[in-house]
Amino acid sequence: MKIAIAQLNYHIGNFEANTDKILANIQKAKAENVDLVIFSELAVCGYPPRDFLEFDDFIELCVNAVEKIATACVGIAAIVGGPYWNNETEGKKLFNSAFFLADGKIQSNHYKQLLPTYDVFDEYRYFEPSENVKCIDYLGEKIALTICEDLWNIEGKELYSESPMDTLIKESPDFMINIAASPFSVLQADNRTEVLQWNTNKYKLPLFYVNHVGAQTELIFDGASCVLNATGEVMAQLPFFEEHFSIFDTKSLEKELLEKIPSKFKKIETALVLGIKDYFKKLGFKTATLGLSGGIDSALTLALAVKALGKENVFPILMPSQFSSDHSISDSLELCKNLGCKHHIIEIEKIYESFDSQLTDLFKGTEFGIAEENIQSRIRGTLLMAQSNKFGSILLNTSNKSELAVGYGTLYGDMAGGLSVIGDVYKTDVFELCRFINRNGEIIPDNIITKPPSAELRPDQFDSDSLPDYPILDSILFEYIENRQSPANLIEMGYDEALVKRILRLVNMNEYKRHQTPPILRISSKAFGMGRRVPIVGKYLS
Amino acid sequence: MKIAIAQLNYHIGNFEANTDKILANIQKAKAENVDLVIFSELAVCGYPPRDFLEFDDFIELCVNAVEKIATACVGIAAIVGGPYWNNETEGKKLFNSAFFLADGKIQSNHYKQLLPTYDVFDEYRYFEPSENVKCIDYLGEKIALTICEDLWNIEGKELYSESPMDTLIKESPDFMINIAASPFSVLQADNRTEVLQWNTNKYKLPLFYVNHVGAQTELIFDGASCVLNATGEVMAQLPFFEEHFSIFDTKSLEKELLEKIPSKFKKIETALVLGIKDYFKKLGFKTATLGLSGGIDSALTLALAVKALGKENVFPILMPSQFSSDHSISDSLELCKNLGCKHHIIEIEKIYESFDSQLTDLFKGTEFGIAEENIQSRIRGTLLMAQSNKFGSILLNTSNKSELAVGYGTLYGDMAGGLSVIGDVYKTDVFELCRFINRNGEIIPDNIITKPPSAELRPDQFDSDSLPDYPILDSILFEYIENRQSPANLIEMGYDEALVKRILRLVNMNEYKRHQTPPILRISSKAFGMGRRVPIVGKYLS
Repeated sequence: MKIAIAQLNYHIGNFEANTDKILANIQKAKAENVDLVIFSELAVCGYPPRDFLEFDDFIELCVNAVEKIATACVGIAAIVGGPYWNNETEGKKLFNSAFFLADGKIQSNHYKQLLPTYDVFDEYRYFEPSENVKCIDYLGEKIALTICEDLWNIEGKELYSESPMDTLIKESPDFMINIAASPFSVLQADNRTEVLQWNTNKYKLPLFYVNHVGAQTELIFDGASCVLNATGEVMAQLPFFEEHFSIFDTKSLEKELLEKIPSKFKKIETALVLGIKDYFKKLGFKTATLGLSGGIDSALTLALAVKALGKENVFPILMPSQFSSDHSISDSLELCKNLGCKHHIIEIEKIYESFDSQLTDLFKGTEFGIAEENIQSRIRGTLLMAQSNKFGSILLNTSNKSELAVGYGTLYGDMAGGLSVIGDVYKTDVFELCRFINRNGEIIPDNIITKPPSAELRPDQFDSDSLPDYPILDSILFEYIENRQSPANLIEMGYDEALVKRILRLVNMNEYKRHQTPPILRISSKAFGMGRRVPIVGKYLS
Repeated sequence: MKIAIAQLNYHIGNFEANTDKILANIQKAKAENVDLVIFSELAVCGYPPRDFLEFDDFIELCVNAVEKIATACVGIAAIVGGPYWNNETEGKKLFNSAFFLADGKIQSNHYKQLLPTYDVFDEYRYFEPSENVKCIDYLGEKIALTICEDLWNIEGKELYSESPMDTLIKESPDFMINIAASPFSVLQADNRTEVLQWNTNKYKLPLFYVNHVGAQTELIFDGASCVLNATGEVMAQLPFFEEHFSIFDTKSLEKELLEKIPSKFKKIETALVLGIKDYFKKLGFKTATLGLSGGIDSALTLALAVKALGKENVFPILMPSQFSSDHSISDSLELCKNLGCKHHIIEIEKIYESFDSQLTDLFKGTEFGIAEENIQSRIRGTLLMAQSNKFGSILLNTSNKSELAVGYGTLYGDMAGGLSVIGDVYKTDVFELCRFINRNGEIIPDNIITKPPSAELRPDQFDSDSLPDYPILDSILFEYIENRQSPANLIEMGYDEALVKRILRLVNMNEYKRHQTPPILRISSKAFGMGRRVPIVGKYLS
């Protein structure tokens, strides 16, 4: 059987665009005499549709789209993901379905059984788990079709008591298909290969795996669809972070020229660029603004934004104050020059003075402190939003994960923006990523990478005045946030007790700030945002 | 058997405070010769603990607390809620448990079977549903113990395929106990009574129901625990929105003086006051600030804040501009006088001029518009945050639900704050609530309630310039947000097609703004926040 994998970038709720894209790929497959073309999980509506699934109207639009797609499936079959009604009176009203389309109509529905609810996933919120799974009979072959998580109940880490493949295998299928919407994180591609191999090894069947590609707000899907033979060998690896269409013969799988799994920083760079690009495109925006402080975070954000949107569409603004060092301006100017960006300079000292003067009465008898530092940051936020409102740009936020974790940032000031580009990148990785971007020549001026980090909100201020060194801070944060290590475990691992307690307290007491951040492009297994849900008034560790 | 219901206000993750409170109530019950005292769902850690449940350390602290409480249960028994380990290798690692404590130790665990994942609930994210349920044998009686949602699988609306009471009833229990954490919304008290009665009618048993009371960030728990006899008659109704301790004899239930279910606006007022009070108390704050515009939203927020925190702890700031009408100031001053609050006035015109002057170059050739309006709003946000940062107050946000829905507000300006007090109250209800607050005499000046709403960001601006009248806007929003009506349904209900499309488009395209709002005190069945999860880049209806 000739199978095509269509690895596509969908747009949530944009039925017209998604349907057109799917139809175009069916035509393409037909022209190549393909027997079966496969699309990813919830392809018709995009993933994750979240509470849109609670509108009957939305489901009807999904089902209409599937029916329209089915009419094109004459002389070819397709598998496409979408929600479908659960007609039983008990249980949730929907299934997460894979539709098997042939002879111009829906031939059968195959429902997802294992519904993830961890991290960013909320599938059991909407869907009833399938109780009946069955293979597809097509052109004399039996296909064991599953959806994403259905293959992830691997031994030793079972979150579920049954696996649908254990039922499907009894029908002696010829091969497996898994349609997925598996979001990117730095280690996910490797994990995914292991999980898929665990399945081929257990069930001794070839596996055709198709994943979403593209970004949906904070979630970035890396594609990287693949084909494994019955012994777990990767026979084909589709590209990362881009659309692709490939054809395979199920009877004679040949090892194709393989895409390599990119390096860590290549993956992060490509993911973030795609994240920016899709956020703008899917919202119908073209231009971005951001504040250039002379520091490494805004420099990196600008470099990524220029890659994503083009140098003519990014408008950095320099907003020096009396506390800004000369190099802040000269380094920023050099960066703009390297990138070919226009820039704009707005001094904030006079605006600050006007606040200061209006606050004389209220602040009488108090000393310059955090309140005054934050005013400067909020003046900058207001100026950037003025650019955004006036010219229809989206403000890119430049906070990194380390400072978001410990609350080292000003709400409505440097924490403002429509999208947080590097909010899931620890500071130590910010340095590495800048060096990676400079691999073929200096784009981000070396001085920006090597000078000591500073917020420059008072004279001679450095991050190191109030925070531990970033390598130690980041490793504690990583163990706590990504690995869920307790204070006792961290201390046992050799970290200083007082430091551990201080850092975890900062993380927990700053939950209220993170509640108000823009969506953060997710590149780790545990990003701030929808995948991490913490009570603001919680007293634990704070 | 003598049963005590302890309706208490817990603090998430504050094990010391929660344990002390539970122990004090056990002592009180002992002193009254009570046989069994019952506490609510997840009482030891507070509800909802959310991702704190992912830390083994947190679970150990919960179990330690339960064990400590158990040692006090000598000569008395207690039922207390907390998470507990699932020791099976398959499935999620925790159960949502009710611990039966007697003779100084944990006698048995009773796990929740029905785990809600709709609206604000995420229980299947953490917990494995119970497969085995059993009654408690105590003092010669059999108790059918369930946890919250376990009783909510009522006929005709079954979300689940089995109900634990259907199993428990086979043991012929003498009565039912349900321990709950059921958050308040305006109609919830009535719904709850109906659901509990559906159970007493079906199983022909008396029911002792204990609920959480108190606010946890956005969720407000109204308590209102109750006792029903075997024919569904409410024999006792505990108070709404406050802690309480009551004793009952299971053999001779007598109808006690009943608390009435308060009126709609009494409930909303009390809920919001409790919401403010607990947010401050649980975070360790005492004082609040807010901006007084002369409009009805900030007036209502101030009146509620004064009730919650005391007039000496609330610091309203008036920030007039050249566009403010005289009555904005005079009405606000009168309100402050009525409430006995100190106020502060800061003119913003000069600060605005300093922004204007620094933006001359960037804005060259453009006209006064949204960008300039927003600058004024953000100057106010910055001034209020300056007060907050300088004096350690929390800024109360004053946005209402109608304007949050359609995006009629300025991010980092009037949308700023640590807590949104009336963000789940539609504008039409804001008017009603103000009238209710004035029921015993004018607190909120009548002119504030009757004058036409205006943002006063440009000359002669009124809400009605850009929005439909509030009664029509609110009824469309209510049908769409709370009732999940589709555009087609709304048009069928008689609403103007163009208006429906315009409003739904506004709701959906402003999702990005609501992503950055403070937590919103929840009083409806569908509030913006954790219970409503919508993709920002979604194209559906936008």
